[in-house]
Amino acid sequence: MAIRKLLVANRGEIAVRIIRAAQELGIRTVAVHSLADADSLAVKLADEAVPIGPPAASKSYLKIDAILEAARLTGADAVHPGYGFLAENADFADAVEAAGMVWVGPKGDSIRVMGDKVAARIAAEAAGVPVVPGSDGRIDDPDQARAVALAIGFPVMIKAAAGGGGRGIRIAHDMEEFERLMPQASAEAKAAFGDGGLYMEKVIERARHIEVQVLGDGTRAVHCFERECSLQRRRQKVWEEAPSASLPQAMRERLCASAVALAEAVGYRGAGTLEYLYDDASGAFYFIEMNTRIQVEHPVTEMVTGVDLVREMIRIAGGEPLRYRQEDIRLTGHAIEVRICAEDPSKGFQPAPGTISALRVPGGAGVRFDTMLYQGYTVPPFYDSLLGKLIVWDEDRASAIARMRRALGELAVEGLPTTRPLHMLLARDPEVAQADFHTRWLEPWLERNAHRLEETPE
Amino acid sequence: MAIRKLLVANRGEIAVRIIRAAQELGIRTVAVHSLADADSLAVKLADEAVPIGPPAASKSYLKIDAILEAARLTGADAVHPGYGFLAENADFADAVEAAGMVWVGPKGDSIRVMGDKVAARIAAEAAGVPVVPGSDGRIDDPDQARAVALAIGFPVMIKAAAGGGGRGIRIAHDMEEFERLMPQASAEAKAAFGDGGLYMEKVIERARHIEVQVLGDGTRAVHCFERECSLQRRRQKVWEEAPSASLPQAMRERLCASAVALAEAVGYRGAGTLEYLYDDASGAFYFIEMNTRIQVEHPVTEMVTGVDLVREMIRIAGGEPLRYRQEDIRLTGHAIEVRICAEDPSKGFQPAPGTISALRVPGGAGVRFDTMLYQGYTVPPFYDSLLGKLIVWDEDRASAIARMRRALGELAVEGLPTTRPLHMLLARDPEVAQADFHTRWLEPWLERNAHRLEETPE
Repeated sequence: MAIRKLLVANRGEIAVRIIRAAQELGIRTVAVHSLADADSLAVKLADEAVPIGPPAASKSYLKIDAILEAARLTGADAVHPGYGFLAENADFADAVEAAGMVWVGPKGDSIRVMGDKVAARIAAEAAGVPVVPGSDGRIDDPDQARAVALAIGFPVMIKAAAGGGGRGIRIAHDMEEFERLMPQASAEAKAAFGDGGLYMEKVIERARHIEVQVLGDGTRAVHCFERECSLQRRRQKVWEEAPSASLPQAMRERLCASAVALAEAVGYRGAGTLEYLYDDASGAFYFIEMNTRIQVEHPVTEMVTGVDLVREMIRIAGGEPLRYRQEDIRLTGHAIEVRICAEDPSKGFQPAPGTISALRVPGGAGVRFDTMLYQGYTVPPFYDSLLGKLIVWDEDRASAIARMRRALGELAVEGLPTTRPLHMLLARDPEVAQADFHTRWLEPWLERNAHRLEETPE
Repeated sequence: MAIRKLLVANRGEIAVRIIRAAQELGIRTVAVHSLADADSLAVKLADEAVPIGPPAASKSYLKIDAILEAARLTGADAVHPGYGFLAENADFADAVEAAGMVWVGPKGDSIRVMGDKVAARIAAEAAGVPVVPGSDGRIDDPDQARAVALAIGFPVMIKAAAGGGGRGIRIAHDMEEFERLMPQASAEAKAAFGDGGLYMEKVIERARHIEVQVLGDGTRAVHCFERECSLQRRRQKVWEEAPSASLPQAMRERLCASAVALAEAVGYRGAGTLEYLYDDASGAFYFIEMNTRIQVEHPVTEMVTGVDLVREMIRIAGGEPLRYRQEDIRLTGHAIEVRICAEDPSKGFQPAPGTISALRVPGGAGVRFDTMLYQGYTVPPFYDSLLGKLIVWDEDRASAIARMRRALGELAVEGLPTTRPLHMLLARDPEVAQADFHTRWLEPWLERNAHRLEETPE
């Protein structure tokens, strides 16, 4: 069904991003907003705006009934969830469709399958996509545990099969350590959950985070190549690139083909991202999870392929078949995105909301700044700290880094501290210049460089 | 010689553009400025700034001695002239080189040859590039004049061989009119200049303005495809595109090859543009002139090729050979630029300087806004009215126009009138959508649509 009016169930820069894509398609837009966001740029740019609740996300952006009511009030016939909030909530997807509207995203059941780590792992294995070697289920017998540990290869992570999250995880680096830790883990699991069964998985110690962007229409899927997001702090990505500087072409083809195979196997509809760990020492890659939504870092892919991912999501949701054959999508140049957040890097990245007293947006060739900021805007304290994404494109990676330095030099956000100084240092770092990093590179670097984040480097 | 410090002998958005390119190359920058431009964005972004005189351009941006003195003072080793002012002043080019500095542009003699219409026409013909059919010199004999008129084909322009500019131009649409006008023209020429000799040229009545971007290193040249700039008001371009929507691929290849042939024939160094008239009814094209500098509308070419033209100019001037083979330069998608000027379209495009009380820069995928504006900036009344260039790229022309509408909708320049309403109307015009226009299309359109420019369309 052709979409005429799209409700954007989100806030911040991604709400602006979605409104722009809809406008270019000639679709009217409805912004929903909490009372803290009445002055937001999304509200200003949208055709209509509906307040849906108090500042707390649980009472506004996470409130399914309020959002559906806003859609009814405005006659919206489609909902785009953005990222975060309800974007991976299968019940919300179902509720939108049950209300007779178009859900701009995958079917609720795709979200359910890919949102469950075990189910996603099974789907990946079924599609022939490598997953992190593990016990593939619970193990009760110590002899079997030893055999599986040998099969997986050390280091091995041991945790309670019945437990959730990161609780009680132990890492054994060799069989001697395994013999010591396994009984402890089993005993602790029994004490905590009444079940001594264990789950084991290989620890990928030094890996890159590489993710493949896919687009599917439910029948057919294509990939838009990969992004590398190895620079992370507390598992949050801070610097993202496309393509990966470390992936040999043959490996790129295998990784991307595996992502398309998995997306097609689950009949994926819309934009999605398959995340992998890539061990560039061994050349092995392992599927971790799939994000069944648009991602924060999608613009780097747009810059190197020319594909407008958000627009394609909307077109597909509106019933159009995928417009691209795989050979239509070509990789050109290199793009980098850094996240400019309202955080004080000199104070342990403490969130720092406030009012933007002056703003200078970087511009010129190959520069894009996706933001909800404007001069005079007050960043509310209730939500995540992302203020904008500075994205650059250039012919090659070294030029893109030089352009990033130039654009960061132009960016001026006055009135609150931002993570700009961190990115300025990263853009000058020789290891970053060599792409000589992995997912655990940034945190020790931050410790070593803490003193350099205390003043604004120019 | 490797450039270490570049003086930018210009102002406004092009000064900002050049500073950005230099910064990305790790080159320090010097802005020179009149007293009216002390608060300009170029001054803020450059590493150093030197005042060179009072507001009047004749006493500052056109003052060769003052600019060379600023270069000496700051130790600049190169000068980029931008466009306008001294950009096509061969004596300035020579003076910069005589002072031991690098001139970021073609050799002074290339400027002399291509800056002279007759010499440029001869150079073009010698390189096999079609020029507008004409008498190729003076004609005194009426019988010869008749024969030449028939050879050229009507309509034919007749003017005094001795005269300059547009004075006394007559246009004959057929032989009968020619017989009547020719003696008048000759008599008038004799009266005015003491010389009855005539010059004749074919009138291209309904043509498109198409121009080819070239880059040369003095030895070898490549083209970066063409731009179409048929939407003009008083011979000023107001809307520019790359590629031309009207040029068949075979014609594109011929036109671009002819431009490369001419650039190589004159040993062209740097970025240059060969302007043509293209008669899409007959498929004929005619060389008009060459601009031996960067052009205002260069960003559309950058958007469809990924080549950073200003950066390449600087690299070539610094002694690097051209980095591109012709086959490296590929055309992807479609780009459009509109000129946002401080003019009031509801008052006959009267210039309207003033202070920018609020500024919202459009952003998002495929949008670039090259400007010297910032919130609080006062546009001085002394220079041309260009405030910024809004450039969009998209996969195809229709999408680019939709994106232009969206970006124009986001652009907010408060405190003075701008030409934004004109572009909003053009971006919605069905003939513009069909690229059904020529160089004389816009002026009657403006007359017909004057009433629609009186309010701001949204």
